[in-house]
Amino acid sequence: MTAITPALWVQEELLAGRSLQPTQEQATAYAPANIALSKYWGKRESQFNLPLTGSLSVSLANHGTHTQLSLIDAADHQVYLNGVEQAGESAFVVQLKAWLSLFLPTGISLRIETRNTIPTAAGLASSASGYGALALACNELCGWQLDYTSLSALARLGSGSASRSLWHGFVKWQAGEAANGHDSVAYVLPERWPQLRVGILTVSDAKKAVSSREGMGRTVQTSALFKQWPAQAASDMQHIEQAIMENDFVALGQRAEHNAMSMHATMQAAWPPLVYWQPESLAAMQQVWELRQQGLEVYFTMDAGPNLKLLFEAANTATILQHFPTLEVIQPFADPS
Amino acid sequence: MTAITPALWVQEELLAGRSLQPTQEQATAYAPANIALSKYWGKRESQFNLPLTGSLSVSLANHGTHTQLSLIDAADHQVYLNGVEQAGESAFVVQLKAWLSLFLPTGISLRIETRNTIPTAAGLASSASGYGALALACNELCGWQLDYTSLSALARLGSGSASRSLWHGFVKWQAGEAANGHDSVAYVLPERWPQLRVGILTVSDAKKAVSSREGMGRTVQTSALFKQWPAQAASDMQHIEQAIMENDFVALGQRAEHNAMSMHATMQAAWPPLVYWQPESLAAMQQVWELRQQGLEVYFTMDAGPNLKLLFEAANTATILQHFPTLEVIQPFADPS
Repeated sequence: MTAITPALWVQEELLAGRSLQPTQEQATAYAPANIALSKYWGKRESQFNLPLTGSLSVSLANHGTHTQLSLIDAADHQVYLNGVEQAGESAFVVQLKAWLSLFLPTGISLRIETRNTIPTAAGLASSASGYGALALACNELCGWQLDYTSLSALARLGSGSASRSLWHGFVKWQAGEAANGHDSVAYVLPERWPQLRVGILTVSDAKKAVSSREGMGRTVQTSALFKQWPAQAASDMQHIEQAIMENDFVALGQRAEHNAMSMHATMQAAWPPLVYWQPESLAAMQQVWELRQQGLEVYFTMDAGPNLKLLFEAANTATILQHFPTLEVIQPFADPS
Repeated sequence: MTAITPALWVQEELLAGRSLQPTQEQATAYAPANIALSKYWGKRESQFNLPLTGSLSVSLANHGTHTQLSLIDAADHQVYLNGVEQAGESAFVVQLKAWLSLFLPTGISLRIETRNTIPTAAGLASSASGYGALALACNELCGWQLDYTSLSALARLGSGSASRSLWHGFVKWQAGEAANGHDSVAYVLPERWPQLRVGILTVSDAKKAVSSREGMGRTVQTSALFKQWPAQAASDMQHIEQAIMENDFVALGQRAEHNAMSMHATMQAAWPPLVYWQPESLAAMQQVWELRQQGLEVYFTMDAGPNLKLLFEAANTATILQHFPTLEVIQPFADPS
């Protein structure tokens, strides 16, 4: 038996019986960015981008990525990000082409126009909504009519957290067990929480020196404390899902912040130490803790970058904005405008 | 059999056959502060102050505590810290009296004058050199003629890290296994390292909101990542001792910094999160990492407070001082002045 590769798996299993040829000239799609309440940190396998643990996110409504695909008569794909053509040798384009090559026959070239509607430098302009939108757009372009959960596996092959960026609302990415990752897929939770708010607090726009991908690898390999992470992450995810079902904001906030702090702790215990925080991040955390001591229910989460994402409920929005005037407040469950 | 208490153990075993009555009117002693290169973090037992792991420190030469004991005709002990009489109900005095009551008969009152020669607000004015000096002074006052390793067990009953503050140089506190802690004692290593420098970088004099004792307890109880700490601490201590034997500064610095970062990581993964860093601490860490990237061999360690202790070698002192002009440079192996 041939060793299974991501390309073989995509073509022979995920897309079995479906056309690899585009059936349309153009396709567009949108996918929201997402913030993990319990994080994806650590792979069990890198070729299929398979995570060690499940994760659970909330999508950011109209903050995300719009993608337009057009068939072009050219020797290679052309990639535009926010209107600017990207160099073919850039890491961004190289990774994108590798993903397209999983299923797109040679000889077919696309013009790929990607536009992000997420605040700049917030650590959100990641590849999650990008590959989410790409998967949706390719589904349209080629007429696959795949369900979103299957598309989440395709998006995952581009970027792990992209598997959670196909839906609005709360999304759960289950780790799965299969070697080819067919069961490492995401699905949307039925619960809605209209009062929930996510505040993007951009404390620094310094470009991070170590990518999430590299940071994750270094942590798994060198952080002794990471050995304890999978068990904690599993417990955190379970409690966060429970908090969502019970509309228990304090439980949600506490677990989400604890999960994020623990993830950052695993990085800091790596060697060389991996600290995505900036001094301004720590000052903002201290401000959150101080506000909580004063009785205001506000929590934060953080990803592999210096910025905070505050979690609070609608009733406290005005107060929160007094303390964080630059906060960008997102309503994850707002009706699309 | 009666349950063994610290007082019983001290009187019937540690001081077996020795006088509990002072044999002199006065006694004085000095003990240096110490910086752990591999940390004491987490107790396996609290009444005897027994650690989960061993730890290894370097003493800070003439930075430490001078203590003078005098018999007085009074109803209670009188405690002076840096010339200022301390209130009898202060935590400092209450703890000190509890320690004296382990062996000192009722009816005997002491005037205890403690003077610290350590930089203020550096997170060094801990109880380590204080109880170290007290143990030495009591040994003198009562004429016990105990060896230092036995005295380290007595000092430990006042403050864990005090067990390492009886000697100059590198000191190892072995965790021990006995329930009464008789084998949880420290001893001095024979190695000297005249070129080693410790720089005290006071980045903030904000009083810490959570004591080391409380922080340690919260971490052990609520930090899932802490479960991995004892194994790492044991490995770190072994490698640091090896680095000392081999005069391998890079190995020493790397392991010491990794150990400190990991200890702080266990705290940050506690709930509520325990972050002793201030924004200025993080800025100083970033400066250290930046200097290392430029090829300067400098590392840091941190205790349960916001200040950094830089580790470097004599040849780099001038360069280090250019970058950290307020640094207080200590020569742990300098001849006493």
